[in-house]
Amino acid sequence: MILGRVIGKVWATVKDPAYERRTLLVVAPLDPRTGARRGDSTLAVDFTGAGEGDTVLVVDEGSSACGLYGDDVPVKTVIVGIVDSFDCFGRTFVVN
Amino acid sequence: MILGRVIGKVWATVKDPAYERRTLLVVAPLDPRTGARRGDSTLAVDFTGAGEGDTVLVVDEGSSACGLYGDDVPVKTVIVGIVDSFDCFGRTFVVN
Amino acid sequence: MILGRVIGKVWATVKDPAYERRTLLVVAPLDPRTGARRGDSTLAVDFTGAGEGDTVLVVDEGSSACGLYGDDVPVKTVIVGIVDSFDCFGRTFVVN
Amino acid sequence: MILGRVIGKVWATVKDPAYERRTLLVVAPLDPRTGARRGDSTLAVDFTGAGEGDTVLVVDEGSSACGLYGDDVPVKTVIVGIVDSFDCFGRTFVVN
Amino acid sequence: MILGRVIGKVWATVKDPAYERRTLLVVAPLDPRTGARRGDSTLAVDFTGAGEGDTVLVVDEGSSACGLYGDDVPVKTVIVGIVDSFDCFGRTFVVN
Repeated sequence: MILGRVIGKVWATVKDPAYERRTLLVVAPLDPRTGARRGDSTLAVDFTGAGEGDTVLVVDEGSSACGLYGDDVPVKTVIVGIVDSFDCFGRTFVVN
Repeated sequence: MILGRVIGKVWATVKDPAYERRTLLVVAPLDPRTGARRGDSTLAVDFTGAGEGDTVLVVDEGSSACGLYGDDVPVKTVIVGIVDSFDCFGRTFVVN
Repeated sequence: MILGRVIGKVWATVKDPAYERRTLLVVAPLDPRTGARRGDSTLAVDFTGAGEGDTVLVVDEGSSACGLYGDDVPVKTVIVGIVDSFDCFGRTFVVN
Repeated sequence: MILGRVIGKVWATVKDPAYERRTLLVVAPLDPRTGARRGDSTLAVDFTGAGEGDTVLVVDEGSSACGLYGDDVPVKTVIVGIVDSFDCFGRTFVVN
Repeated sequence: MILGRVIGKVWATVKDPAYERRTLLVVAPLDPRTGARRGDSTLAVDFTGAGEGDTVLVVDEGSSACGLYGDDVPVKTVIVGIVDSFDCFGRTFVVN
């Protein structure tokens, strides 16, 4: 489970119809100590209506997604929340 | 969930019959910020008819594959979509 | 499963109501050989009442969370315990 | 899901009886672009009768193993196939 | 699934009662080619009665733990076996 920032979008023809109703976003991980991006970006299916520039809560799903999004969605990385602010070592970051 | 490019194919004798009806491809991860390859390539079972040179959507499956592809397929990495284009930091990449 | 230290907190608007009743903490991994922080910090959902500065037991959940916290919680990283002390190569660290 | 080469074997007393009927092999990952070993070796439970020197298909299992090998096998990494040949960037490697 | 050596122990107050009946050990990964430690140590729940200095078989569990240890145990990394010896590139290591 990581903090991320939406930096792009992907258009794809996906076999499974469940994907077609969702936006596929490019997310860059953020370091909660500095608020800066770190490491490789990833793709995530959005369940929150997030857009470019939003700071989001990204969950790298195992099968716990089964119950929430339906058994037949081969979802792995999902955006489950939009972050308002975070606090690390006493420093506060207001992001949305 | 990553962007990847198909760079090869594997022929194997697999115990499980479910694998035999599928193509096993070699996929190189792509960096969505540049469209260039990055990191180690991986093997993925194709569910889309993708071929060498295609840009694909690769899902590193946990058990969420159970519902879609049958309970007895020990599938881990699958190609679930063919990417048409992606957009990162305002730059657009048309790939197929 | 790692040792970690709570170093911050995140406020987010999460789609799933199960998250809203939980605190989302920033956790830095600890090296059990030295008691020092190492590597990238992560976010974790707290199930113990841990606060900043506490040394905690962090589990990177797959679907084993299903039974304990409900089937519809897309939880990935959780704090399941508060560490009292640990011992490594004969050296003891009393942390709480 | 990776290409690997069997480089050794492990003898262990495992609590779960399901493991005792299986060989535990040491597998080195192979780079499909060169056919050379890369990165750290891993342990894998063999389901194919593979032996030292064989090029194999290794799946890092989540719970999708449940259906195939029985619900009570805490299997994580398994050898599911023996590779005959692979092809990468137009270069063919015949390995068995 | 990796080879590891027990190098320490953790005392923690864990919410879930299933953890309280188990020992939580610090395990250092071993390189099967040399028998030496490599990489970061991890925590693992012991199911074998292993103690400091033992060479063990460590499984990074997904949900396959469900059947064996009960559905409500949020177990991720477990020690499932005690290693007697291993063999790599023709060299034999007798460890217990």
